[in-house]
Amino acid sequence: MPFMKRLASVLAFGLTLTCSLTGGAGAQDLDGKYMKTPTGYLMVLRRGDNVLQHLERLTATENIPSASFVGIGFMSEATFGFYDFGRKQFDPRTFRNVELTNMTGSIAWKEGKPSIHAHGVVADGSFAGSGGHLLGLTVGTGSCEITVLVHPPRLERFVDPEIQANVLGLPRQ
Amino acid sequence: MPFMKRLASVLAFGLTLTCSLTGGAGAQDLDGKYMKTPTGYLMVLRRGDNVLQHLERLTATENIPSASFVGIGFMSEATFGFYDFGRKQFDPRTFRNVELTNMTGSIAWKEGKPSIHAHGVVADGSFAGSGGHLLGLTVGTGSCEITVLVHPPRLERFVDPEIQANVLGLPRQ
Amino acid sequence: MPFMKRLASVLAFGLTLTCSLTGGAGAQDLDGKYMKTPTGYLMVLRRGDNVLQHLERLTATENIPSASFVGIGFMSEATFGFYDFGRKQFDPRTFRNVELTNMTGSIAWKEGKPSIHAHGVVADGSFAGSGGHLLGLTVGTGSCEITVLVHPPRLERFVDPEIQANVLGLPRQ
Repeated sequence: MPFMKRLASVLAFGLTLTCSLTGGAGAQDLDGKYMKTPTGYLMVLRRGDNVLQHLERLTATENIPSASFVGIGFMSEATFGFYDFGRKQFDPRTFRNVELTNMTGSIAWKEGKPSIHAHGVVADGSFAGSGGHLLGLTVGTGSCEITVLVHPPRLERFVDPEIQANVLGLPRQ
Repeated sequence: MPFMKRLASVLAFGLTLTCSLTGGAGAQDLDGKYMKTPTGYLMVLRRGDNVLQHLERLTATENIPSASFVGIGFMSEATFGFYDFGRKQFDPRTFRNVELTNMTGSIAWKEGKPSIHAHGVVADGSFAGSGGHLLGLTVGTGSCEITVLVHPPRLERFVDPEIQANVLGLPRQ
Repeated sequence: MPFMKRLASVLAFGLTLTCSLTGGAGAQDLDGKYMKTPTGYLMVLRRGDNVLQHLERLTATENIPSASFVGIGFMSEATFGFYDFGRKQFDPRTFRNVELTNMTGSIAWKEGKPSIHAHGVVADGSFAGSGGHLLGLTVGTGSCEITVLVHPPRLERFVDPEIQANVLGLPRQ
């Protein structure tokens, strides 16, 4: 079916173009940092990598419609934010030289851009656990392994006017 | 194959009937709160939703044979229980205004009803992590996102007589 | 196709042989402790089981090329290690009578042997959370449920000379 083949290559070109436009220079930073799996992607980040930014790049480059993920990391720097409903902003705190014992989150889109929602638990040298909503996460010495489970429909986050916070929207049935 | 089609529609009707009987009024509460994915379900619960009860409803409505799940939540109320083997009961404690940094668990059946086993980690405004076996979990301000990975065989929990606690039974080979 | 059938049975025999050689006596210890799922495996371990060792056995017996996993456990004994870069070794600490609220990790190979990388979060009777890199984990009273998501390519861990620690290698593209 030469017509279908041509159509496919045109579509593929369109996709590549979209990816390079969306991913920008960042797409190159992903080289060798992830692989496709039957259920999604496995990503291994290294020293200095900004985890949330790399998840955004992966989402844009691979045009991931929506996904869930879990991950762990060896020696990270994590910034958590606890939401202050009075001031309507996050109170941040940064933890350095901690193990990322678990990261759990979801991938969606908001206003045409990838939107990552990640929570994490870290532990320091005394093994005390801290956690919360991740505002930032950088890989220190070692690596960070993230498993992404892709879902087909493109999901969007929207601001719930009642709480002024992002909520993941599901398709209307 | 008209016979097969008729058989399928009879089976589908039977299934619907079973679901509506099992799910009861609760099934309606799930409207717009989850979607099917290639590997299971993605559920987004909102303010006031009882998480464990909604997982039970999802299990009954969709007749989930068994499953594993992970989730996160923004501002929840979590009640953990630590098992006292002497008194053979859970010592409970409730945490309010905490982020659910991770919930991990499994879905099975016990005596004809859905049986949810969930552990959780929460963090408060100081980012201190607490956790344990979840006796109850209610979504506060915000939402709770749960990813369910379905397994085909129907699994049952049974009480291990030695410890008087539920254990997940696997199929005998 | 009788030739294909014979080829298949020869291959199956070869696989069985490989498994019994690789798994050794340990393979028998896995009897009834796991089942295959569409996306990988579900494992339920019981009192006294060494979790990391059983994951190694599962990997060898089923010849798992690579995988991610999550799990929870009821009353466990967990030994965490925090890496001291000066002394290039782990400072260990053991927690007894704790719930395993979350375990997250990956399966790969190193020098022909299964290589398990697991992080965990535990909580004691006061519900305080502790966590880190798991050096050891034994199921106490109760059980431990582990969900394994298999990825097809065989992945190897290698020692990063810069940090003298294991890193998960992805296939070169």
